[in-house]
Amino acid sequence: MNSDALESRLREAIRDIPDFPKPGIRFKDITTVLLEPGLFRDTLDALTEWAEKHEAHKIVGVDARGFLFAAPVADRLRIGLVPVRKLGKLPYDTLQESYDLEYGVNTLEVHTDAVEEGERVVVIDDLLATGGTIRAAASLVEGLGGVIAGAGFVVELGFLDGRAQIGDYECFSLVNFE
Amino acid sequence: MNSDALESRLREAIRDIPDFPKPGIRFKDITTVLLEPGLFRDTLDALTEWAEKHEAHKIVGVDARGFLFAAPVADRLRIGLVPVRKLGKLPYDTLQESYDLEYGVNTLEVHTDAVEEGERVVVIDDLLATGGTIRAAASLVEGLGGVIAGAGFVVELGFLDGRAQIGDYECFSLVNFE
Repeated sequence: MNSDALESRLREAIRDIPDFPKPGIRFKDITTVLLEPGLFRDTLDALTEWAEKHEAHKIVGVDARGFLFAAPVADRLRIGLVPVRKLGKLPYDTLQESYDLEYGVNTLEVHTDAVEEGERVVVIDDLLATGGTIRAAASLVEGLGGVIAGAGFVVELGFLDGRAQIGDYECFSLVNFE
Repeated sequence: MNSDALESRLREAIRDIPDFPKPGIRFKDITTVLLEPGLFRDTLDALTEWAEKHEAHKIVGVDARGFLFAAPVADRLRIGLVPVRKLGKLPYDTLQESYDLEYGVNTLEVHTDAVEEGERVVVIDDLLATGGTIRAAASLVEGLGGVIAGAGFVVELGFLDGRAQIGDYECFSLVNFE
């Protein structure tokens, strides 16, 4: 799979929604990618190929759109899947982390038994914007003693410079809107 | 794969959480299934084998835990994936449907371009409780002209008799807590 070709197919398929969820935000709608089986499969191929290099013990998927990509990647790699969820959604004992979002404030949680000391974890989400979500997810994993092996995204909003906020974590995206 | 064996492994792995999300509700925590790669894979094998028989054009996944199972099944079957989401999460034009939940009221949405006239759709969610969610999801699909080929779940709470609410749709679950 040519990554330039995949990038341009994603760029074409992803739909711009002006003023969602708030005025002034131009939202990148990835549901159009899910509707094209060939494109969805190639997107998962590329994410899986990248994730596989990191010899991760687990994939972390971020609630909720991140689940759409993280779950198939965990399935393909035959490793465990850890959902990081919004506040109040996980029923067992949790660690919590709050952060500023592109539009608002959010709190994420992870089950305290989801990651073990020393486990290598790859985090997958649909979108890298300001980097707040991924930093909170990484902080939760590290709070449980896990090691962030990398962070992978379908879409990166390069103009928000989230990559700079991620620090030393390896960051990978399939299409960058700069 | 022996389905009795899978059922008993799921019954063992799924964690009971008393009084979540509200007092008196005994919540079935499926995140423990995701953490066991072999069990997660066998669960997806069984859901995929069932879904494949329905010659569906698309898989519908219900926000958010349903995504964890629906996305890998769509990936394995190489067909499109349609997220049905909670109110305000989908950015494009939507159809909406409200329903009573086991605890509260909810509104679901689907993108109006997600299902085409006459397409056969399999709906996948983690849990069948009272059946309200799946009926709303089915109603959205039918509102777009789609045909519900079946509804598949990891867990069924048989004592809530949700199956009776689903009507004529074929209903499949891997473990039934009666």
